[in-house]
Amino acid sequence: MRMVDLIRKKRDGHELSGAEIEFVVHGYTAGDFPDYQIAAWLMAVLLKGMTRAEIAELTSAMLKSGEVLDWSSLPGKKVDKHSTGGVGDKTSLIIAPIAAAAGVYVPMISGRGLGHTGGTLDKLEAIPGFRVDLDSRRMEEVLAACHACLIGQTATIVPADKKMYALRDVTGTVESPALICASIMSKKLAEGIDALVLDVKTGSGAFMKNEADAAHLAELMVETGERMGKKVVALITDMDQPLGRYVGNALEVVESVEVLKGGGPADLVDLSLELAAWMIYLGEAAASVAEAKRLSSKLIASGAALQKFREIVRLQNGNPKALDDLSLLPQAKNREDIPAAQAGYVTGMDCEKVGIASLVLGGGRERKEDNVDHAVGIVLHKKTGDKVAKGEALCTLHYNAAARLPEARALIAASYLLGPQAPAGKRPLVHRIMGKEASGHKGS
Amino acid sequence: MRMVDLIRKKRDGHELSGAEIEFVVHGYTAGDFPDYQIAAWLMAVLLKGMTRAEIAELTSAMLKSGEVLDWSSLPGKKVDKHSTGGVGDKTSLIIAPIAAAAGVYVPMISGRGLGHTGGTLDKLEAIPGFRVDLDSRRMEEVLAACHACLIGQTATIVPADKKMYALRDVTGTVESPALICASIMSKKLAEGIDALVLDVKTGSGAFMKNEADAAHLAELMVETGERMGKKVVALITDMDQPLGRYVGNALEVVESVEVLKGGGPADLVDLSLELAAWMIYLGEAAASVAEAKRLSSKLIASGAALQKFREIVRLQNGNPKALDDLSLLPQAKNREDIPAAQAGYVTGMDCEKVGIASLVLGGGRERKEDNVDHAVGIVLHKKTGDKVAKGEALCTLHYNAAARLPEARALIAASYLLGPQAPAGKRPLVHRIMGKEASGHKGS
Repeated sequence: MRMVDLIRKKRDGHELSGAEIEFVVHGYTAGDFPDYQIAAWLMAVLLKGMTRAEIAELTSAMLKSGEVLDWSSLPGKKVDKHSTGGVGDKTSLIIAPIAAAAGVYVPMISGRGLGHTGGTLDKLEAIPGFRVDLDSRRMEEVLAACHACLIGQTATIVPADKKMYALRDVTGTVESPALICASIMSKKLAEGIDALVLDVKTGSGAFMKNEADAAHLAELMVETGERMGKKVVALITDMDQPLGRYVGNALEVVESVEVLKGGGPADLVDLSLELAAWMIYLGEAAASVAEAKRLSSKLIASGAALQKFREIVRLQNGNPKALDDLSLLPQAKNREDIPAAQAGYVTGMDCEKVGIASLVLGGGRERKEDNVDHAVGIVLHKKTGDKVAKGEALCTLHYNAAARLPEARALIAASYLLGPQAPAGKRPLVHRIMGKEASGHKGS
Repeated sequence: MRMVDLIRKKRDGHELSGAEIEFVVHGYTAGDFPDYQIAAWLMAVLLKGMTRAEIAELTSAMLKSGEVLDWSSLPGKKVDKHSTGGVGDKTSLIIAPIAAAAGVYVPMISGRGLGHTGGTLDKLEAIPGFRVDLDSRRMEEVLAACHACLIGQTATIVPADKKMYALRDVTGTVESPALICASIMSKKLAEGIDALVLDVKTGSGAFMKNEADAAHLAELMVETGERMGKKVVALITDMDQPLGRYVGNALEVVESVEVLKGGGPADLVDLSLELAAWMIYLGEAAASVAEAKRLSSKLIASGAALQKFREIVRLQNGNPKALDDLSLLPQAKNREDIPAAQAGYVTGMDCEKVGIASLVLGGGRERKEDNVDHAVGIVLHKKTGDKVAKGEALCTLHYNAAARLPEARALIAASYLLGPQAPAGKRPLVHRIMGKEASGHKGS
């Protein structure tokens, strides 16, 4: 088998066998093939696509390129949730504790923020002392002690993805549903989970701006997971405006704690309960999704979920007091309200611009090597459908460096669409639920 | 401008500007971009194609990546011919002397054989002492002295093509009409010519097996040359069986000399006169193609063309006596006739297999770094349409290493298609003639 022949085969639109895909992936990981051959192959994959069987083989080959975590010593189902990324999406901080409190194991490996989207690891690191760099032995101890552990990628898990993603990033080959699916699913399945809840975002703040693209990716991921013997459901959820009202790392911890205390904005509460319920149901800690949702609400009302979050924080070296005394979290030195230029209604939001505004303030990364300022961010007072008076604050910027304000202000001004009439209708929070396990369930 | 954005632009099917294409080509030649980015870009170009304007810009950018030869000191038109490669195609050795004898300057830069096709340089080097590695100053002296000079690629001409071709070879991106066109045309236009005759081969021994592909490439090359202000015609010519009866480097010199002496097989004579006539006509040494063809015949009959070949050989350090005493050319030690397995007719030939048989005997190269045995080759006694008796020799293999015989025998056996009936009809030698200059002219 020669790499150049496999490039030509994919270039000409033929289906690659499992052995051929493994040859590419493992050979590249081992350093047998130069970057330029893989770059040409990735472009051919992006432009010619892959069959479902090829995507499953690619996922499997990538998965097998490194360590697959094994929690067989822990009695019970292991379940994770993965989001394709959005603005203000802090559900992981809420639902990992809820699902763990319900008795499900949650071995969650998350990512960092990139571009306009936030990352769970950055949010967790806003909690003083919190460490996400645990090895698999320590992760097992934490899981055994409190049923949930939230860490970052390790060098030993899916090394093929690290190498391929770095190459895709500089060769214009990121935007392939097949490659995105294999990248996500190989990393999630390497967590040694039994079931996976996928939160596939759609709307102006998502990577997939339109629902058809989001549903296509969701379908690929569900089928890939199911082909590999896992329970998988995908929820297509709305990201046409930020989730909740807080955007920024420490600010999102604050809002997550609010929800775990029984408060918080309705959209964030509803989506968290929906996702947590699916984790609990697939983790076989409830007989139905409805029952799992009631259980989730109870675990919030009783304080058990918040207590679980405190335990996780403590076991991962963080200061759990910061969850009760929020002044212990990083706080920005300055605040500035952004006033409405006219009276009327918020008729829509360019959600991606809100994410970029937070990035510009220092809360995100343009490049992987950038540092993040955990304190900065945006508190939204108005969202789509809200009535505003002229001069009323649409949101408040929390910032440290004044030099970054003008760009952030301009982005926020452009992100709010104002009009004289309230917008007709409302986008649903959950557009669709997909997967064998979800048959009979509909979106909210 | 960032390279990754230009990859994405081409990936998404958009047209690149001249400045963008120059950025890619000159940046790559200068070592500014890694191979993997260019590999991804080349695959996107192959799969998404290029507009005529983009191809002209690519050709121009490649041309400008190195030295463009300048013969303004020589009074008269400079004309070259380029063939896309075939088996037994030795017309350059015949028509360069004819055109030069007619008063046209022929600054010809040729290639070496690769795969099943032969190369002009290898054929010339079969002449004892002949040197193809002249620099441009010496080339000018030879041109001034005898109107023709035949050399190989130099390091200073179109360095972008050298780098890009090496990358295309290992990334499955050779087979793009746009890239093939730009590669050929940039090198030809760097010769500092006024006009170009393209011999685009089609049939079982050509790179383009079917006429539509050949015509498409021809059209691209003609338009590209015309956009750059040159006179260009393309002849789509037949390569469904070897041209002439001799295949192999020294053997093809023998047959070329036969034609220059007024002999030789009809197909080779006819195509040589046709191509030479176009060179002479475009080079403004005759008022019409018909007149140029009559002139070509006269230059053969008078011995002027052969005398011109002797001059070229002498000026390029070769031994001109080898053209009169052919025993001075390399000769294979052994010969073996290949008999017909049955009586009947040659109904067709797999021409590529004849080329590979010659390669297997040592006459060609599988890889660029292989050495060539100039003495070996194949003399065809029968071609398509010929009647054969059972056991009669179809051809004679000229070989040095007996170890290579079995594979060559098998290839020859498979290349001859025999049947009881003579084949109906005959493929034309010249299928089509294309280009503004050719309007009104038809194929033979």
